[in-house]
Amino acid sequence: MKKPLILVSNDDGITSKGIRTLVEVMSEIGDVVVVAPNSPQSGMGHAITVGNTLRLDPSTIFEGITSYECSGTPADCVKLAKHQVLKDRNPDLVVSGINHGSNTSISVLYSGTMSAAIEAAIEDLPAIAFSLCDYSATADFSHTREYIKKIALQVLKNGLPKGVALNVNFPPKRNEKIKGIKVCRQARAKWQEEFDERFDPHGRRYFWMVGNFVNFDKGEDNDEWAIMNNYISVVPCQFDMTAYHGLTYLNEEWEF
Amino acid sequence: MKKPLILVSNDDGITSKGIRTLVEVMSEIGDVVVVAPNSPQSGMGHAITVGNTLRLDPSTIFEGITSYECSGTPADCVKLAKHQVLKDRNPDLVVSGINHGSNTSISVLYSGTMSAAIEAAIEDLPAIAFSLCDYSATADFSHTREYIKKIALQVLKNGLPKGVALNVNFPPKRNEKIKGIKVCRQARAKWQEEFDERFDPHGRRYFWMVGNFVNFDKGEDNDEWAIMNNYISVVPCQFDMTAYHGLTYLNEEWEF
Repeated sequence: MKKPLILVSNDDGITSKGIRTLVEVMSEIGDVVVVAPNSPQSGMGHAITVGNTLRLDPSTIFEGITSYECSGTPADCVKLAKHQVLKDRNPDLVVSGINHGSNTSISVLYSGTMSAAIEAAIEDLPAIAFSLCDYSATADFSHTREYIKKIALQVLKNGLPKGVALNVNFPPKRNEKIKGIKVCRQARAKWQEEFDERFDPHGRRYFWMVGNFVNFDKGEDNDEWAIMNNYISVVPCQFDMTAYHGLTYLNEEWEF
Repeated sequence: MKKPLILVSNDDGITSKGIRTLVEVMSEIGDVVVVAPNSPQSGMGHAITVGNTLRLDPSTIFEGITSYECSGTPADCVKLAKHQVLKDRNPDLVVSGINHGSNTSISVLYSGTMSAAIEAAIEDLPAIAFSLCDYSATADFSHTREYIKKIALQVLKNGLPKGVALNVNFPPKRNEKIKGIKVCRQARAKWQEEFDERFDPHGRRYFWMVGNFVNFDKGEDNDEWAIMNNYISVVPCQFDMTAYHGLTYLNEEWEF
């Protein structure tokens, strides 16, 4: 049987620990090509590089695996991978991550990791974003391996509905064993920002953004609940942002 | 009667023609505060500044109007406006634009203009993104004024469903009069990228991204159709990216 072709990207950059884990797991099930940013791109959302040039250079960071580092965003990486590296040959699967930090709930909008998967979905490619809900510098990714393999194999076997990409989050490694995988909706939550005001050596003001995560969601069917309760969350996501319930409202209430 | 407080932002930067038009129209109906990027941020999607500092400096560009220019993205601008400039006093309306170029269909994901409106929606603030589907350097924004005022007044009067922001696109100024306003869904389309390969003076390769817009949508209820047929499109958008139809699919098809 022909091995599946798997494209790997991320947003923490090609030298990060998470992408190394992902490349290792994917190499067990397919032929891997890596196109990833040459520097961290966290918080880039679905940014693309329109007013500037892009670099795409071969990398030797993963032995025996075709790899490129790119000066652009995760969405740029997927575009360049498809059109430039793979010459429009379609990968059987696109995976992004493993992100070093949570991408549950509203973070999906800010996430470069997820934008690589969404970009793939726009191209009608099955795609999964993986994130580990652990921000510590020594975060342990080992417990994610067996589940990443299982989820990737499921997607390779069954495919995904058109226009849908998966947002998968793992709880941090705890003493207790992971309870399983939960299919979830995106929790209703937000980042409550504060701005740490400082002054530079020239007396000019600047800010650091400091966010506190606030969860408004009381349900047990969402990704925040899953992670809190030691489940892996799998949220099917789409790039159609239409609020369909809003169509009726506007057609009823508005006068023009 | 107290005048409504209106926050204005954009992604083309505080010096652009589109934001000047928007500030002028909003000044006719409310007290305006401007917080906008100090440089163009097109294609920034929902990017935020997490690993870097932010500048926020007073601007005198709009006479008699409290204005700040920010070094960050449109989403950063809204966060800084709410928490730093307005000290958590809620504006009655947040408007973004007028973007110099189309934000219909899939462009909503890449759009910095829209991300300012979505960021406001996350904060439970009524928000509208305005874009003009005309990329020419001499684009005429004048025909948008009466409609922007009408739509803004409607939102101030009726509000919007929780978590919904409007993506409003205007057709370019044509000889024919605009036919009206259409409430639409996001069209199914994508940017088909090509990469223009070049070499710098040192012989190192780089790329320019070149996109061709491809519309797959045969419907007449979407924003692309509206613009093509000289209507203004109004798409209600949400930040919940869950593909709810995908939940059933995954719960049925997957084995763990």
